[in-house]
Amino acid sequence: MPKIAYAQMKVVAGHPDVNTRKILQLIDEARACGADMVIFPELAVPGRMVGGAWQQETFLDDCECYGAEIIAASKNITVVFGNIDIDVNDKPFNAIFVARNGKLIDSPVIGHELPSAEEKNSCAAPDTQAAYLHLENDTSDGAIEEYGASFLIGNQEQSVDRTSAFCLRLSSAPFVVGEKSATKNYGRPLISVSAVGVQNTGKTIYPFDGGSAVYNSRGELVQYAEPFAECLNFVELNEIDRMPVLKPPVETESARIYRAIRYGVKEFLEQIGVGKVVIGVSGGIDSAVAAALYVQVVGAENVYLVNMPSRFNSATTKNLSDRLAKNLGCKYFVVPIQESVDWTVKQLEGVGVSVSNFVKENIQARDRSARILAAVAASVGGVFTCNANKAESTVGYATLYGDEAGFLSALADLWKYQVYDLARYMNAEIYKREVIPQGIIDIVPSAELSTAQNVDEGKGDPLRYDYHDYLLRAFAENNWTPEEILRWYATGELEKSIGCNAGLVEKYFPNEEDFIADLERWWRAFTGMGVAKRIQSPPILAVTNSPYGARRESQNGTHFTRAYRELKAELIGGK
Amino acid sequence: MPKIAYAQMKVVAGHPDVNTRKILQLIDEARACGADMVIFPELAVPGRMVGGAWQQETFLDDCECYGAEIIAASKNITVVFGNIDIDVNDKPFNAIFVARNGKLIDSPVIGHELPSAEEKNSCAAPDTQAAYLHLENDTSDGAIEEYGASFLIGNQEQSVDRTSAFCLRLSSAPFVVGEKSATKNYGRPLISVSAVGVQNTGKTIYPFDGGSAVYNSRGELVQYAEPFAECLNFVELNEIDRMPVLKPPVETESARIYRAIRYGVKEFLEQIGVGKVVIGVSGGIDSAVAAALYVQVVGAENVYLVNMPSRFNSATTKNLSDRLAKNLGCKYFVVPIQESVDWTVKQLEGVGVSVSNFVKENIQARDRSARILAAVAASVGGVFTCNANKAESTVGYATLYGDEAGFLSALADLWKYQVYDLARYMNAEIYKREVIPQGIIDIVPSAELSTAQNVDEGKGDPLRYDYHDYLLRAFAENNWTPEEILRWYATGELEKSIGCNAGLVEKYFPNEEDFIADLERWWRAFTGMGVAKRIQSPPILAVTNSPYGARRESQNGTHFTRAYRELKAELIGGK
Repeated sequence: MPKIAYAQMKVVAGHPDVNTRKILQLIDEARACGADMVIFPELAVPGRMVGGAWQQETFLDDCECYGAEIIAASKNITVVFGNIDIDVNDKPFNAIFVARNGKLIDSPVIGHELPSAEEKNSCAAPDTQAAYLHLENDTSDGAIEEYGASFLIGNQEQSVDRTSAFCLRLSSAPFVVGEKSATKNYGRPLISVSAVGVQNTGKTIYPFDGGSAVYNSRGELVQYAEPFAECLNFVELNEIDRMPVLKPPVETESARIYRAIRYGVKEFLEQIGVGKVVIGVSGGIDSAVAAALYVQVVGAENVYLVNMPSRFNSATTKNLSDRLAKNLGCKYFVVPIQESVDWTVKQLEGVGVSVSNFVKENIQARDRSARILAAVAASVGGVFTCNANKAESTVGYATLYGDEAGFLSALADLWKYQVYDLARYMNAEIYKREVIPQGIIDIVPSAELSTAQNVDEGKGDPLRYDYHDYLLRAFAENNWTPEEILRWYATGELEKSIGCNAGLVEKYFPNEEDFIADLERWWRAFTGMGVAKRIQSPPILAVTNSPYGARRESQNGTHFTRAYRELKAELIGGK
Repeated sequence: MPKIAYAQMKVVAGHPDVNTRKILQLIDEARACGADMVIFPELAVPGRMVGGAWQQETFLDDCECYGAEIIAASKNITVVFGNIDIDVNDKPFNAIFVARNGKLIDSPVIGHELPSAEEKNSCAAPDTQAAYLHLENDTSDGAIEEYGASFLIGNQEQSVDRTSAFCLRLSSAPFVVGEKSATKNYGRPLISVSAVGVQNTGKTIYPFDGGSAVYNSRGELVQYAEPFAECLNFVELNEIDRMPVLKPPVETESARIYRAIRYGVKEFLEQIGVGKVVIGVSGGIDSAVAAALYVQVVGAENVYLVNMPSRFNSATTKNLSDRLAKNLGCKYFVVPIQESVDWTVKQLEGVGVSVSNFVKENIQARDRSARILAAVAASVGGVFTCNANKAESTVGYATLYGDEAGFLSALADLWKYQVYDLARYMNAEIYKREVIPQGIIDIVPSAELSTAQNVDEGKGDPLRYDYHDYLLRAFAENNWTPEEILRWYATGELEKSIGCNAGLVEKYFPNEEDFIADLERWWRAFTGMGVAKRIQSPPILAVTNSPYGARRESQNGTHFTRAYRELKAELIGGK
């Protein structure tokens, strides 16, 4: 009865030495536990997101050289692992190697050329190839049995060789919040192994959740690995169809998001070798959620909260910041910025440059991040965070070198409503007490950079998040443009199409002109300054399929299609 | 004798309305001049670098709708233009359309699916297809002749249909400094038309130089368009093989770079609608070259030079800044930063954070850009520049939100020696006087952020540009790693391999340990903090095939291959 081990290992992209050391350990462990075979993820040796290293001949050679070491270590155990294979033109290909007793059993199974156009996914995976695997069978007569196996690379559906007795899938893909598509039933047992860890394409940081699992011949789940955890699991091949069927626990979106972000932040900090985190806290929701999150990752003793009031910051938000810091037990500094802002204005006016109120707003934001937070972070040997959410990032409602600065934007793939959900989730399920004061959840969202944003008068951001979250999601995640939006508005289908609550369009926009002015304002922001700011924004922790950074963007300004302009003219004519 | 017009037009990416208006005008102009045919560049309707718009169904439809308008406008003239063609799966393909008298002559010539993996190039272009073109022939009997034409898309070599009488190439590609590969001889006349303008992929701004030209059947140049200029040129098809052969003028690298950068900056500013530019000038070479460049683009009256001394800035560099501003005739402000830096340190120490000298260096850099320059730019309604060069960008020798900030890095695809060359070129050929003071060219490059960088004592940057420019180019443009570098060092071939002057390795590195320490220091910087800083750096004006931004990069830290470590051990053993 062949015993198969599958290793949901943490793959460190660009470090074949580190990955190989781990693989060799796990081979020993699997052998010691009596496994006949051990399986590692797709691209377990190089990692998937290795950036410029795909173009380095020496890196490719290095991966081959470590691959040879793994093959050599396959004494008395079949080792299946993902690495690159270099073709006659020196191009690297995604490949699966199968070795036993120091030799490859067959030629490697070759997937697509690397890197993929969209680096986070396997693409154009070929049909699977089958190989006959010699596995020890511990039946009384001690005979060696052969099993035909089909190999699948990545997440794509592939067809399976008819003669194979079971399937092995090696993959390596980032976490995505939302529905998981059902695993295809191949009509025979499937053992699927995938990597955990954090990989990045520069601007976008992807947590990999693993999701390794075993399915029976009816496509039902019979064993699975904890998400985001390294583990070596075992299954008896001939038992798979007799094992009880499992249902993975159903979780809320916030629980899934929290775990992915917490893991992603933790691993990323570890990768860059940083243990201390500085967070500017305003008394608003985004910085409060960031603070509660980072305390879970590095501990309260390593989180520095800094409140930096100007004359526009209310006692209300200052008190809420203070309460937050007390609840979390972090170090807490208050560093006022008004003197510095006044001095900057004085210096500029001294050389004849007059400074408008709008410019003064952004001076405050940059003073906080580039003058104070960056210096505090460098002084304590840590980093400071960017607390932007996806709605702000979409329309560039943030100041470059100000609140749009930091080592990582952990919340920038979350819409504002998801940030609120996360606040409530952390209070209820993680801290099990009100660490994020209810006042922060209840207060109107505001940048507090001018009297026009006075929270005590209920004034705040120009975004009505219960509507704009969904409008902006339509732009950023669905690739819809004002043409679709206006068409749905005209037919009354807008709220349903973008997924917001009914009645909001009528509530916020008394007439067509108001609706169109708002639509065009945010479309211009998304395609104009929003792009310019995203080019220089910090890396983003991805939890969706369309995080910024990974998204193809050009700084081309705003375009309205002819069909949009015609529809607009029909609705409001020459107005 | 058919007369053919070819339009080296400025294509505005993502704005089919603007491009179509231009195309319609040029069709009228060509017809008025008696042309039988007019040819427009590849992707003349949508542009090449349209970013997220490739995923917008409404954008694709819009391009088709404008394409129909162009087809409808082809009365009495054959119009050849690049647009997208949408296949049955709603995917856009690079395509050439040929229309006459309101109808397509044939099905469009289909190239590769869009977008290309590497957006700046056409890829996987198919073999050409031939079409028979009806062109008026003005011979005495007034007969209509048919000409078989082969259509080529992009810059790739393609094979040509044997029956075709001539070839038409439609392309659209960025300027690249350095050798141009010779145009393939197709054995018949070739008319090649390409776009000018500026397109971008977000982080990377590409000037398009055009390079439209006519070649005879022997592959010799007989007509060409001025680079970076919009023009409608004419050629008589039957005359091409009788036209005198031309040689385009030979130019220096600096002349080519200057023209590309000047054009790129001018067009980019126009695209983002900005006419005023603020530049922090230190008395060093990079900011001086930037100042002289921007004065040529927007005029001295729209350039604001700001010198921001701290206690570490020498009288020498302050005087040089002053002289530069006088020479250029720009507005000039001196805004000292020492008080603000002291106040920041005092505020931090006031809350118990102690500030090291190294942190104080970066406080100065951020104070200049994020506090002063950003506020001046916003106040005058302009932008401020980033003056980083490619050597600094490669190793992250710059401060984020400090000198690594700005709307555009116009010099960040130039090595330090190219910045010096550009200074000399502008003095000699553009200004024809010493606008950049010789003192700025002669002084040791220095950040002047501490006494360790005292220029009057000849101290400055840790980079020895005459060697490090070439080492870093090997990393950044050749994909060489320490493994190749150390191998060449060991065999004495290093200087020749990386292209620097002989004798420098011996001059700078007395022994193997010193050489290896330096190599590892900069490799760590390139693959470590350099990547982190580039993720948040301003857009870069590209003049090479491997500008940052376009280059695939991951923040994965530093890796040394096993072969490197073995070679190092051979050289220095356990030292």
